[in-house]
Amino acid sequence: MERVCLVIGAGAGIGGNVARRFSRAGYHAVLCRRSDEAGLQRLVEGIEAEGGTATGYLMNAIEDGAIEDRVEQVEAELGPIEVAVFNLGAQIGNRSLAETRLKDFETGWRLATFGLFRLALAVCPRMVGRGQGTLLVTSATAAVRGNAGQHSHAAAMGGRRMLCQTLNAEFASQGIHVAHVVVDGAVDAPDTLGRMLGPEGFQKLREARGLEKDGLMLPAEIAETYFHVAQQHRSAWTHEIDLRAFSDRAWWNH
Amino acid sequence: MERVCLVIGAGAGIGGNVARRFSRAGYHAVLCRRSDEAGLQRLVEGIEAEGGTATGYLMNAIEDGAIEDRVEQVEAELGPIEVAVFNLGAQIGNRSLAETRLKDFETGWRLATFGLFRLALAVCPRMVGRGQGTLLVTSATAAVRGNAGQHSHAAAMGGRRMLCQTLNAEFASQGIHVAHVVVDGAVDAPDTLGRMLGPEGFQKLREARGLEKDGLMLPAEIAETYFHVAQQHRSAWTHEIDLRAFSDRAWWNH
Amino acid sequence: MERVCLVIGAGAGIGGNVARRFSRAGYHAVLCRRSDEAGLQRLVEGIEAEGGTATGYLMNAIEDGAIEDRVEQVEAELGPIEVAVFNLGAQIGNRSLAETRLKDFETGWRLATFGLFRLALAVCPRMVGRGQGTLLVTSATAAVRGNAGQHSHAAAMGGRRMLCQTLNAEFASQGIHVAHVVVDGAVDAPDTLGRMLGPEGFQKLREARGLEKDGLMLPAEIAETYFHVAQQHRSAWTHEIDLRAFSDRAWWNH
Amino acid sequence: MERVCLVIGAGAGIGGNVARRFSRAGYHAVLCRRSDEAGLQRLVEGIEAEGGTATGYLMNAIEDGAIEDRVEQVEAELGPIEVAVFNLGAQIGNRSLAETRLKDFETGWRLATFGLFRLALAVCPRMVGRGQGTLLVTSATAAVRGNAGQHSHAAAMGGRRMLCQTLNAEFASQGIHVAHVVVDGAVDAPDTLGRMLGPEGFQKLREARGLEKDGLMLPAEIAETYFHVAQQHRSAWTHEIDLRAFSDRAWWNH
Repeated sequence: MERVCLVIGAGAGIGGNVARRFSRAGYHAVLCRRSDEAGLQRLVEGIEAEGGTATGYLMNAIEDGAIEDRVEQVEAELGPIEVAVFNLGAQIGNRSLAETRLKDFETGWRLATFGLFRLALAVCPRMVGRGQGTLLVTSATAAVRGNAGQHSHAAAMGGRRMLCQTLNAEFASQGIHVAHVVVDGAVDAPDTLGRMLGPEGFQKLREARGLEKDGLMLPAEIAETYFHVAQQHRSAWTHEIDLRAFSDRAWWNH
Repeated sequence: MERVCLVIGAGAGIGGNVARRFSRAGYHAVLCRRSDEAGLQRLVEGIEAEGGTATGYLMNAIEDGAIEDRVEQVEAELGPIEVAVFNLGAQIGNRSLAETRLKDFETGWRLATFGLFRLALAVCPRMVGRGQGTLLVTSATAAVRGNAGQHSHAAAMGGRRMLCQTLNAEFASQGIHVAHVVVDGAVDAPDTLGRMLGPEGFQKLREARGLEKDGLMLPAEIAETYFHVAQQHRSAWTHEIDLRAFSDRAWWNH
Repeated sequence: MERVCLVIGAGAGIGGNVARRFSRAGYHAVLCRRSDEAGLQRLVEGIEAEGGTATGYLMNAIEDGAIEDRVEQVEAELGPIEVAVFNLGAQIGNRSLAETRLKDFETGWRLATFGLFRLALAVCPRMVGRGQGTLLVTSATAAVRGNAGQHSHAAAMGGRRMLCQTLNAEFASQGIHVAHVVVDGAVDAPDTLGRMLGPEGFQKLREARGLEKDGLMLPAEIAETYFHVAQQHRSAWTHEIDLRAFSDRAWWNH
Repeated sequence: MERVCLVIGAGAGIGGNVARRFSRAGYHAVLCRRSDEAGLQRLVEGIEAEGGTATGYLMNAIEDGAIEDRVEQVEAELGPIEVAVFNLGAQIGNRSLAETRLKDFETGWRLATFGLFRLALAVCPRMVGRGQGTLLVTSATAAVRGNAGQHSHAAAMGGRRMLCQTLNAEFASQGIHVAHVVVDGAVDAPDTLGRMLGPEGFQKLREARGLEKDGLMLPAEIAETYFHVAQQHRSAWTHEIDLRAFSDRAWWNH
């Protein structure tokens, strides 16, 4: 039984890189994503090629019991989840109110807000029993300000942020570190931004931003901060932190 | 056909008092609440006794189509909804994470976040067509900070706040005024706080706070500010405003 | 002896209009501004022409004792200051760090932050003695977010905002209403914006924004909200409120 | 010539520990503090005992030219300032408005806000010339909310926070990383908190909080996060981060 870092939402962007970063530090990485078995396999093999250990699962987090069952199985078969990373996005691009269907709005919430609540329900009691644990939550600009076309995304992320504060208020003194990471910019992530923009659009953006290749946020670099936050001593914990590329403006400036 | 002020969530607290305030200014008040036909009738009669006009409906806002159908009927039969007031709460008292059921969390969202989204979908296109309209959204401390035991409420209200900002970003320039009112304190409202605390607990709180009867927030006074915000000239609109009793500390101080 | 509304920073924009609004409600308006005796006289005469009463003073608020002496004199000769409006700006336009002199930075603070502190020291004890009073503080976008070129202005306004929260924390329960008004946009004010842009630039901006003459914020309309806030019942006080033109984006969206 | 980490405000708490942390990574630490030559000497010797290099200066930051001359001398004699840490506090304990003298309020600003502005004026142009540099700013709860008795401190820190955002807006794209660190709790720092409380009071607080010795924030642990932020890749920079002990509530919860 190894100590586990569980990543919900493990594509080739933040999720996969965070899994890899923790595996380098000796965690068994558990990667869960909805689709693309080949992509998942590549991430697992990449970790193993570096001498780490990892397990991958295809999982539709929105399904009843999917998160809960996974947590139970991981804890029973692989080891205690010391770090849980909730990295499900709910960005569907900009849509006017009229174009935002009831279903879109509900799905955004089911993934981004309710999914985190379900993960917390599943892992927090176990962490409390062990007197420690870390819950890292990827978040977005939309968690701190709404903007045109972001009806579904902002509502879901705003709920996520307030939930993180509530979890922190209940669990910090019990040794559980909950951190809300505001990723305030475009991430160089082929599985999410890449899919949303299409291959050409994505490449074009990369080139436009590509000042020495770091105009987009590099997910391997983001992962370093996730790892640092998880290693903070409990006398100096971070609850909220923002991240953006040097070349980008902060959300409060545009 | 009169101009209408539609209140979703019209109990004897903020909702009923806002309806009455607008009726005094010549709006036809439409009061919707889930239960208590007698209480609803009293509110309608109270408005009529002052020379105003009002219509009351029992309505379970959480049901599919309930808000949408009501908006359509009101517009067809009573008049254009110039002001829509979304006043549904989702406070269920403090519950630890373990005590917060999936159903609680979902219901909180359905009422507080999804309900507002549905109302906006129903009224905004009509308001855009008329080049004006006002959407006043009652909100709570939980919209700006999570706190222990507020998992469901804070997530729902945080989503509500970000949705208000998104609606504002899309609709302000089209003449629709969206305002998010942070009610940061206990309201002297028998139908919500009174029900949550029970008659004795409520009376006890009133007496404890009752410095010259205004230690609790008086809903008739809150209604004055709702009315003012709705009357603001479009060159000087408020999007967010907080309200609390003079004797209470601001949320950021406790 | 009449009840007094004292305005520090009374030009033809927000300050003068707020003075006029309160004078219409029976307050004796006291207008203080640094320069332009003719402009000051016009404001006083405008108020008197409407049947109100007003007194104007040229006053350099930055000078030692200027605010303190004025408060003492007004209270002794004209009446109790029930409402004090602190409306001194400190916007010097955008300047890079290198272009911002030590003197600029200090002057910004002396006007915008220290001036408010001095006013509070002078009026709050008197208001406490009377068990009531209102302190309305005009503020700006720069109080809630820094932006390029705003080194002096943002630092001064950020200090102002935190000072308002501190004053509120100490004095609200003693009956003094402190409100921080975030004016988030360009005001149609010839004495400040007009002077900064020059006559041609100002007229050009007015025309560019001039959708039916309300693309700039109209100070007479802003004054309505100042007046409303000052009239709020103490069971439902606002501490912070934002104001912007319908046609403008909120600061968190640009 | 070595690369330098300059710490303004280097006592035995955050400042001294940050200096030591950077010295371990090969920076020459320059420690500046107002008084206590023996304490300063101990910090320098502690760093040297670990194999690092350091220089200590007694410096009254509030004096004209003190910061500016120090920066010039360090750059000329010791090496380029790659990291500047602004760690001057301005906490004077809780004082009512009436007890807060004009001089207190001005001194708070001179230290906490103006001092940072002067440091930025001195180091930023040099960093721009080198295409990189880091400015780490220690901040406090009072930067994000005012509270009773904090008139001087909150106004100074609120100004500091807005100044950091302004510096970030101008300099991030030029390769300078400005980070605002909200230290939201009591730090186990004998030179500041210890002096404010007195030896007995300080020891009493340490014991009261001393759950396994980490109920107070340990400055050596805080220093780890300062170091991490300074090492972040420029594609994933943090501008604002909070820090508090696991056993403490976040500022928004008390």
